[in-house]
Amino acid sequence: MNKIEHIGIAVKDLDLSCDLYEKLLGVAAYKRELVASEGVSTAFFLTGENKIELLAATEEDSPIAAFIQKKGEGIHHIAFEVSNIYEEMERLKNKGFVLLSGEPRVGADNKLICFVHPKGTNGVLVELCQEIKAEANG
Amino acid sequence: MNKIEHIGIAVKDLDLSCDLYEKLLGVAAYKRELVASEGVSTAFFLTGENKIELLAATEEDSPIAAFIQKKGEGIHHIAFEVSNIYEEMERLKNKGFVLLSGEPRVGADNKLICFVHPKGTNGVLVELCQEIKAEANG
Repeated sequence: MNKIEHIGIAVKDLDLSCDLYEKLLGVAAYKRELVASEGVSTAFFLTGENKIELLAATEEDSPIAAFIQKKGEGIHHIAFEVSNIYEEMERLKNKGFVLLSGEPRVGADNKLICFVHPKGTNGVLVELCQEIKAEANG
Repeated sequence: MNKIEHIGIAVKDLDLSCDLYEKLLGVAAYKRELVASEGVSTAFFLTGENKIELLAATEEDSPIAAFIQKKGEGIHHIAFEVSNIYEEMERLKNKGFVLLSGEPRVGADNKLICFVHPKGTNGVLVELCQEIKAEANG
């Protein structure tokens, strides 16, 4: 785990929360991104080397909608940057952690991602993420 | 806000969770610290420039015990490093945020700290923290 890449925060209204976090952090969101496959709309803020990701559901049956219904708005996950997500997934499996997918998936912000089951991490939803690099031509 | 200084995670058993997070993060805790005034025992892990702080209650009526009773184990707060906590507290008050103390308090890890009320931040408990520097002699 190289560093905390971002903290994901589940919110009900992305526009209202973007205004709020702009005031809190003293910087504006540097991008917004819809991840249709996850039913989520996101906004990213930079704080030093780390990011804050706000997540709002775009569909009633999306994981973020379910999270908010159960727990209310708040911190949803911690994402750690890793250099090689395949190796890190293997390392964690060997240590007894349960991964939520057998292969990395493509997430927001140009990342390969994989989640670790929170039952094995004191209730914390941990995301591994690795930047997707453009492949060289040829 | 300079960066995420640490993420605080509320746990029931500090020893068990230290073992778990050592496996997860691939590094051992670099220090433990009892903060008697908060009724909490803490352990810190380094991940790049950021830290993970595990917090276990040492008293039944401490804030961490109350948090776990209400919500279960999990992420308790995000702490942002600030250069001048007094200025940042003033800035946030002027933006309409509610602070949980009028003055900074001394927290774990040699820091002046102040919390922002989570009702004004989409349910996220935000901590401001500033390193306490040793004063020069004379």
